[in-house]
Amino acid sequence: MSARKHKLINEPDRIVGEMLDGFCAAYSDIVRREGGRLVVRAQPKAPGKVGLVMGGGSGHEPAMLGWIGQGLLDVNIVGEVFTAPGPGPILDGIRAADRGGGVLLCVSHHEGDRLNAELALEFCEIEGIENVDMVLLYDDISSAPKGRESERRGTAGLFFVWKMLGAFCEGDVTLAAAKALAEKVRDNTRSLAMSLSSCASPVTGEVMFEMAPGEMEIGMGLHGEIGSGRRKALSADETIDLMLPPILDDLPFQAGDEVLVLLNNSGGMTLMELFILYRRVAIQLSEAGIRVCKSWIGPYATTLESAGFALSLCRVDDQLKALWDAPANGAYMKQP
Amino acid sequence: MSARKHKLINEPDRIVGEMLDGFCAAYSDIVRREGGRLVVRAQPKAPGKVGLVMGGGSGHEPAMLGWIGQGLLDVNIVGEVFTAPGPGPILDGIRAADRGGGVLLCVSHHEGDRLNAELALEFCEIEGIENVDMVLLYDDISSAPKGRESERRGTAGLFFVWKMLGAFCEGDVTLAAAKALAEKVRDNTRSLAMSLSSCASPVTGEVMFEMAPGEMEIGMGLHGEIGSGRRKALSADETIDLMLPPILDDLPFQAGDEVLVLLNNSGGMTLMELFILYRRVAIQLSEAGIRVCKSWIGPYATTLESAGFALSLCRVDDQLKALWDAPANGAYMKQP
Repeated sequence: MSARKHKLINEPDRIVGEMLDGFCAAYSDIVRREGGRLVVRAQPKAPGKVGLVMGGGSGHEPAMLGWIGQGLLDVNIVGEVFTAPGPGPILDGIRAADRGGGVLLCVSHHEGDRLNAELALEFCEIEGIENVDMVLLYDDISSAPKGRESERRGTAGLFFVWKMLGAFCEGDVTLAAAKALAEKVRDNTRSLAMSLSSCASPVTGEVMFEMAPGEMEIGMGLHGEIGSGRRKALSADETIDLMLPPILDDLPFQAGDEVLVLLNNSGGMTLMELFILYRRVAIQLSEAGIRVCKSWIGPYATTLESAGFALSLCRVDDQLKALWDAPANGAYMKQP
Repeated sequence: MSARKHKLINEPDRIVGEMLDGFCAAYSDIVRREGGRLVVRAQPKAPGKVGLVMGGGSGHEPAMLGWIGQGLLDVNIVGEVFTAPGPGPILDGIRAADRGGGVLLCVSHHEGDRLNAELALEFCEIEGIENVDMVLLYDDISSAPKGRESERRGTAGLFFVWKMLGAFCEGDVTLAAAKALAEKVRDNTRSLAMSLSSCASPVTGEVMFEMAPGEMEIGMGLHGEIGSGRRKALSADETIDLMLPPILDDLPFQAGDEVLVLLNNSGGMTLMELFILYRRVAIQLSEAGIRVCKSWIGPYATTLESAGFALSLCRVDDQLKALWDAPANGAYMKQP
């Protein structure tokens, strides 16, 4: 199966700018654009609060644009397709998020994102911008073995960090406490992804990676990074039975635990399939004695139009449950 | 480009049942399943209110499952893939929605849905169930010319009816008033869809309709019904410039009007493309002197994994704006 090569765009070199024009026009009650590539809250936080900044490449929409807003993040620095923004724009993002209570730069762990974030922090030091810190976020169990968690990639499961950290930083908290909370959610979150099909770059029209019809791969990254190798595609139940046990074993999640579940659509899956997959997740978690507090099923962090999904679990305690239930109003994340 | 034939399902004859198992397990705070194929509100409306029932084939998720909940609809009768539920299940749905204030059966206009709904109303008469009425809903300007609106198909633009009618029927209103409100929203809504690719039936694995790579078709229905014929795929701006004028001319929408806009993802489009398309919609509406009050961009009524979108506009007055802003809590429609 070939990926869809014709994209409804205009000029390839205007993709990101025009995407931001459209997004910010549609959701002008929630976000506004600042400078070329910053998306910021339309109603900034009160002075003195910790600001939250997140940068990343495009191609994962609604991540991270959809997570800017009340009870969520403050600034998104938008890179080119699948390309981390440079340290200069990140520095601009840090300035835009600064409300006097410190700024936490959240980095979804990929080599380019991490390096540029570290450079941006050096720039902050040179320019005398104080009270800025960064937190490295990762969740994908396929990208490094247990015991080497900090080498893992950031993928769809960071969903849980964004929501809870955002709620936490609406309160009167310190930068150090914000970082500790982000680490707490991260350290209780595990994800594993799979894919049935590739996607085509809107810039070049080229297919990002090759997949044959009827094949699947488990453990792919958000940009088609290699996983456990190709295999014949399985049924829904077989797929979950293959993916859930390594997630549970990794933390490990145990009987009596309470969890939140995300079944993230990489783009081209149908909700029908995701509901069928979720059915098996619910059965297996129930049999393992793990209680699901709440679930989300849909496209939260995509890889363009790839057909695939990620399964993410986050173990929660009373503090995290309360943060989850706090109100949020992003364009693609609403908690009434 | 061929559609993705491998679906993550189990047995083809268990698709709809397992999908409902998964959906109702994931969103048990909002919905519950009743009988085989009914999805109802977990917290029913107060006695005396008008109940709202909507039936339809599967394959359009999150429609209509995602629209059951507070401030929205009361009961969804779920048919097989792209197949209207029969009059028996519709009758069950009417009974389940009956809170003593009458029941409005909402029908998205397709031949099968309309015939089965009419039969169900006859069953109601035979069984002595009173105070039930139906409203025929349509919005797709490509399926019949101006002046023959009632022959048109129901498509993604019914989005506006569901939200406003749902809000209206949380109040103390009569069945006749509910029907009149549904007709008012319908008569102020116009949609037009296009597609770049087909989808494969999860039941048979067969491609639903054929499309060549680099082709597009404007005016397709929600099941791949034929539109204006195939043409070479255009750019984003060209596509909007072709689709928006006939929508505006049809109602007509005029300078000074206030509208809500939906850019509905048929399934396999990227949000990146939809934001770029929306940018042009916003520019053209602004030039036409039409004010956009609010917009939604995403997968609300899909055709499995087809890559395409529908553009829908709804003209609003103060009554409709207030109904839109009323709170809603469905699994896939949240208004904080």
